[in-house]
Amino acid sequence: MFNAKVKSEVLKGIIDVTSPLVNEVKFNITPKGISLRAVDPAHVAMVDLQINDKAFEEYKATDMELGIDMDKLGGIMRLSSADDMVFLEYEEDSNRLIIKIGNLVRRMGLIDTAGMPDPKMPNLNLPAKVVLKASELNQGVRASEAVSDHLALTVNKDNFELYAEGDTDTVNLKLPKDLVIDLNTASKCKSLFSIDYFSNMIKPVRGEDPITIMLGNDNPIKVEFDIADKKGHVVYLLAPRIESE
Amino acid sequence: MFNAKVKSEVLKGIIDVTSPLVNEVKFNITPKGISLRAVDPAHVAMVDLQINDKAFEEYKATDMELGIDMDKLGGIMRLSSADDMVFLEYEEDSNRLIIKIGNLVRRMGLIDTAGMPDPKMPNLNLPAKVVLKASELNQGVRASEAVSDHLALTVNKDNFELYAEGDTDTVNLKLPKDLVIDLNTASKCKSLFSIDYFSNMIKPVRGEDPITIMLGNDNPIKVEFDIADKKGHVVYLLAPRIESE
Amino acid sequence: MFNAKVKSEVLKGIIDVTSPLVNEVKFNITPKGISLRAVDPAHVAMVDLQINDKAFEEYKATDMELGIDMDKLGGIMRLSSADDMVFLEYEEDSNRLIIKIGNLVRRMGLIDTAGMPDPKMPNLNLPAKVVLKASELNQGVRASEAVSDHLALTVNKDNFELYAEGDTDTVNLKLPKDLVIDLNTASKCKSLFSIDYFSNMIKPVRGEDPITIMLGNDNPIKVEFDIADKKGHVVYLLAPRIESE
Repeated sequence: MFNAKVKSEVLKGIIDVTSPLVNEVKFNITPKGISLRAVDPAHVAMVDLQINDKAFEEYKATDMELGIDMDKLGGIMRLSSADDMVFLEYEEDSNRLIIKIGNLVRRMGLIDTAGMPDPKMPNLNLPAKVVLKASELNQGVRASEAVSDHLALTVNKDNFELYAEGDTDTVNLKLPKDLVIDLNTASKCKSLFSIDYFSNMIKPVRGEDPITIMLGNDNPIKVEFDIADKKGHVVYLLAPRIESE
Repeated sequence: MFNAKVKSEVLKGIIDVTSPLVNEVKFNITPKGISLRAVDPAHVAMVDLQINDKAFEEYKATDMELGIDMDKLGGIMRLSSADDMVFLEYEEDSNRLIIKIGNLVRRMGLIDTAGMPDPKMPNLNLPAKVVLKASELNQGVRASEAVSDHLALTVNKDNFELYAEGDTDTVNLKLPKDLVIDLNTASKCKSLFSIDYFSNMIKPVRGEDPITIMLGNDNPIKVEFDIADKKGHVVYLLAPRIESE
Repeated sequence: MFNAKVKSEVLKGIIDVTSPLVNEVKFNITPKGISLRAVDPAHVAMVDLQINDKAFEEYKATDMELGIDMDKLGGIMRLSSADDMVFLEYEEDSNRLIIKIGNLVRRMGLIDTAGMPDPKMPNLNLPAKVVLKASELNQGVRASEAVSDHLALTVNKDNFELYAEGDTDTVNLKLPKDLVIDLNTASKCKSLFSIDYFSNMIKPVRGEDPITIMLGNDNPIKVEFDIADKKGHVVYLLAPRIESE
């Protein structure tokens, strides 16, 4: 059983976070909320999302799974405004999700979750942590897109640094400790990442909202932030690129 | 003779209503106003538009016909803002329409109306009538576009209903009598229509403005609404699609 | 040595003026400001731009040249808002221009100026002069684009006139002396120009800002306007098209 009432913008937030990485997603429904974890088709990135039942206006559910086509759900949600109330209900006999927006009733076919994987969150030892505003990071990533397809992130005890290098051009975003919200590391950590993937991961975070980054040496990066008025949380993992030189 | 002064937005309204269905249109000019009636190239839809001389700031005309290329007229009107005054004048010796916007003078070549048809409005017996807000209908149509290329409209004595069905998904917009402006029918009427055509017909109507729908059983639909501050009126006819099942 | 601090919108203005005509530009830097002069690849148009050191918040330079890729510079400037401060510095040992926006440092490779031409401004005798608002001219040019690929400009002692003619349609923008800011000519002057080029030349000028036009008979046109709060000046030259009839 799944029966919920939620503001459109909360549902849109889930779509923004998930759909750049994966199209077909298994929603794990419990009485306490919804979670999902998915790996992109190239197995380079993972998204893990938890959303509390408190993020919903009304929420009633038993343990179950829903296989959702995110593109389709995104198309439906575009029919609503941010403040619209959306009613969600699982219709067991037809295996459809009923989505009500105003007087509109949309019955959406679900994907069979039988074949869908349950990726495990790898146990990572990422010694460096930095918390910074999304807008700062975003500007650096946009600048990097013009010069290369990968960027290096570095954290040492004094600075966070983003660096990208092309044939003739370079991008450098250096944020000293006092210009970020938090910075903490025992040693210098540096890893390289695909700009495409990294850009998709930070895009859903609004201008002044904080993003937490956990970094190691040639290790995956962990990007974390809250959604749904802090009643939801997102963790992204992105595998490093190995420096070819 | 044709000589008129009109607000840009009135002329733009005529273009919005006509150009999705037909490109070349014969304007029938009389001392009392302008009318046009045209059938789309596939002979599936008809537009009938009447606009009163009162919709114009100034208007002087004798009986005549103007063959208008609606794309071209649309391009010219995009040079003006909604509140701009537009001067129209037929130049007989060159067979052109002179369009003045501010200090700009645009002489537009006309199409020969000799070969253009005079479609007759068919006599239809459409027993069901419903009047509703454009925005409600529009949301249902946009939702339907994602699941199918046709939709069913039903009116019974209690409800207006829009329904579209795809392989796995359905769209349902049910408006009980008290949620529409008016609803009137002796029996249940239901017909199927192409979403593309139907969508184009209702697009020109602004959010809260009323649309009148006349419906029969597997019969064409009649869609009516006012334009130009109620000094103009539009009737669309759309042939039904026959249910393949 | 080149070291400057400037509002983003000033730099964006230089890009808007130059990039429609040429991609690779030689900036001539002096202690008093920056100038550039370039001819488009088809040798039909020339842009000459002067910008005073007063247009900069801070400015320190010796005589030097910088070979700039305008597309690349444009991409970098899109990372900034109109009011953002931009720091520019020439890094001699790497032959790069360092561009700082906030905490972002962008090192941009420069183009070798050795092979870049120094076009001379031709000595033209253009007897007609008219000063008018950009918005008026812009509407006439946009209307002309729909009917032809060239337009005629005429100045006589009473009027400025823009005229374009297609197979069936014409555009005419006639501004009597009292509707322009200034108009001055001893005799009637008329020349034909490519609409594409002319349109690009006037596009950077904002709605109510004045544009000065100098015209002869079948001679190039000179288009002049100020940028950077009158601390910069732009001159365009555009070769005439010869009437084929």
